[in-house]
Amino acid sequence: MVKVAVLGHGTVGSGVVELFTQNAKSITSRAGQEMEVKRILDIREFPDLPYADKFTKNFDDILNDPEITIVAEVMGGLSPAFEFTKSLLEHGKSVVTSNKELVASRGAELLQIAKAHNVNYFFEASVGGGIPIIRPMHQCLAANEITEVAGILNGTTNYILTKMIHESVPFDEALAQAQKLGYAERNPAADVEGQDACRKICILASLAFGSHVYPQTVHTEGITGLTLEDVEYASMWGGVIKLIGRAKKQPDGKVIATVYPAFLSSHSQLAGIDDVFNGILIRGNATGDVVFYGRGAGKMPTASAVVADMIDISKANCTSKSLSWADSDGHNVADYKTDPLRFYIRASLLDHAQSTVNDVMGGVEFLSRSGQPEDEIAFVTGQMTERELDSKLEVLGNLIKVKSMIRVLDY
Amino acid sequence: MVKVAVLGHGTVGSGVVELFTQNAKSITSRAGQEMEVKRILDIREFPDLPYADKFTKNFDDILNDPEITIVAEVMGGLSPAFEFTKSLLEHGKSVVTSNKELVASRGAELLQIAKAHNVNYFFEASVGGGIPIIRPMHQCLAANEITEVAGILNGTTNYILTKMIHESVPFDEALAQAQKLGYAERNPAADVEGQDACRKICILASLAFGSHVYPQTVHTEGITGLTLEDVEYASMWGGVIKLIGRAKKQPDGKVIATVYPAFLSSHSQLAGIDDVFNGILIRGNATGDVVFYGRGAGKMPTASAVVADMIDISKANCTSKSLSWADSDGHNVADYKTDPLRFYIRASLLDHAQSTVNDVMGGVEFLSRSGQPEDEIAFVTGQMTERELDSKLEVLGNLIKVKSMIRVLDY
Repeated sequence: MVKVAVLGHGTVGSGVVELFTQNAKSITSRAGQEMEVKRILDIREFPDLPYADKFTKNFDDILNDPEITIVAEVMGGLSPAFEFTKSLLEHGKSVVTSNKELVASRGAELLQIAKAHNVNYFFEASVGGGIPIIRPMHQCLAANEITEVAGILNGTTNYILTKMIHESVPFDEALAQAQKLGYAERNPAADVEGQDACRKICILASLAFGSHVYPQTVHTEGITGLTLEDVEYASMWGGVIKLIGRAKKQPDGKVIATVYPAFLSSHSQLAGIDDVFNGILIRGNATGDVVFYGRGAGKMPTASAVVADMIDISKANCTSKSLSWADSDGHNVADYKTDPLRFYIRASLLDHAQSTVNDVMGGVEFLSRSGQPEDEIAFVTGQMTERELDSKLEVLGNLIKVKSMIRVLDY
Repeated sequence: MVKVAVLGHGTVGSGVVELFTQNAKSITSRAGQEMEVKRILDIREFPDLPYADKFTKNFDDILNDPEITIVAEVMGGLSPAFEFTKSLLEHGKSVVTSNKELVASRGAELLQIAKAHNVNYFFEASVGGGIPIIRPMHQCLAANEITEVAGILNGTTNYILTKMIHESVPFDEALAQAQKLGYAERNPAADVEGQDACRKICILASLAFGSHVYPQTVHTEGITGLTLEDVEYASMWGGVIKLIGRAKKQPDGKVIATVYPAFLSSHSQLAGIDDVFNGILIRGNATGDVVFYGRGAGKMPTASAVVADMIDISKANCTSKSLSWADSDGHNVADYKTDPLRFYIRASLLDHAQSTVNDVMGGVEFLSRSGQPEDEIAFVTGQMTERELDSKLEVLGNLIKVKSMIRVLDY
């Protein structure tokens, strides 16, 4: 019998407790022994729940209970989640988490503490909800050199983009619909400004490339500036706009890590991932592209990833020392403007200078849409770095006034 | 330092050896120690290879070498692969394999032998080539009750179908193209008649539901009978035809396991999986649908899955006793004709009895295509079991003569 505890009885936490009841039989069979939730930490009271007696408001009841060997931290936020996790690891308890903010900000540190105390710190649920991604990436792709990771990592923004793309609903209205359906928070900043996706790409990049990629080193743009005009040009070009978190290893070993909306061809395996679904692509030198797809959030999917990590720890008498990465000073991240890409530009043309634009840009693909104003141009450039793009745009000076710039990605 | 051996220096085997050289640095880092291929078994000689000195024709050189602790069986076929694997496991060596035929036919037995000798028998490479599927299904979805597994499991047939769907190339010609490109064997029976997909769904079903599903208990149909007419009707209906292997748990605990071409809506996450790619969908009661996508075959993808299993074994001082299933007498598989589905039927109408067809079938959706002969009808039924369909078709007697029947699946 393995006794576990749960920190936080919110959406994911209550899902974790439910799963231990609902799927008890298969959990026992997979773990090879019974597993029981002994304690739940929450500042609130839940007197009507059948398991009301398991609740405590005192963290020490869990920290000092020698029977409890595995703890799920599903409270979110940096503090006190960090302090609790640190104490638990130092007390020889393994911790599993769905807390992407914490792993993205302090992962290297917590993983080192876990290693030093011979316990595990697992975080499958922190990326991709119920989609297995951390473990497969680490384990099954171990024989690959991973060269690139990219994905649709945030369900809320993907829902909004789906509405914009397939139903021509403007951003504000699509956001309101997402909020009404409970897909977006009342304060949607973390989602629509790309911070949630940023945390997830930090975790994936750190694991894939072995040194911590911190959120503040990741160039992050959200989707708040996207217009239906851009969506329509993307469609005329033969693709869609998706919010993509990506990390790519450079020949010098540094990592380019970014979050921004991007044009994807409709043939891309990520282009068809709609609504609240997530999709993550891993590019390996032996496997080629492998894509994982599913519900990237939600109570039960996320809870199932948390419980799977707990089962895994309960089975292993050994700790997984390699599910880890080194700390970094931020110099592991390269300047994203050195990445050769293509770029979509929508601009007003202040003079009849379309051919000048074409010349300066070194040949572009002009796009058109119905209802296009006479002074609007839109085009996709050839491959160049963003530095080169910047200087070309400077050359064009006052000839055009850029309204949108969206990068084009080849997945 | 871990010393390993490779049985068979064919496509996958040579890929395994290459990977140990090419990705040596990341393999060492993931495994936490160096790994080296010490011996390669093959009846052929390869005097020009830089590692020619590692070859042996004598299996005992590997079996009796105490330094070798992990062996990759990538020779394929049932014999001597079975005997070799059994001996190695009994001698306390772990074995990893890409041999789907062997795992599908004798998996339960070999897994029991491995358990009894405290070693591992891993088979990630047997399904989905380089797509991580066995491990994620087993481990990351451990907290789920898996209710269904379905997928495009064979790249050759998927390539042929893609040609038929997108370029209207008839089956025979598409097969010839696949053979020319090396995607299909000169004797393509195992692929086009569905046996390869059958072996893979056996492995997935056995692992998902815990008792061995043997190939002979799986109703298997290939794609040799598919016509461009059916492809066109599928398109008019709003979908595509894909060869789907599936296994579904019934309320009584039995499993329905089948391989057949099926209509899939274009909205299905499996519908857009084209060319030689594979896609596998796992349906869990907590995660919902999770889809894994990538190259399902090929030298390096498959070799990378083999090597990943070897790394995993080298790391674990513990054996994975739960990556296993029980043997069965075949009674774990239910009659596939009891599964409620919709059905596509193309038939010649021997009388002007379209309304009779509609009445007897209980309401159908008629489909049409350009160039449709006057005496041809095509329709999709409502939901019913195949037993019910059979008896309705019997009632219709000589009114229609069925030319094609294809099941409609909801993924």
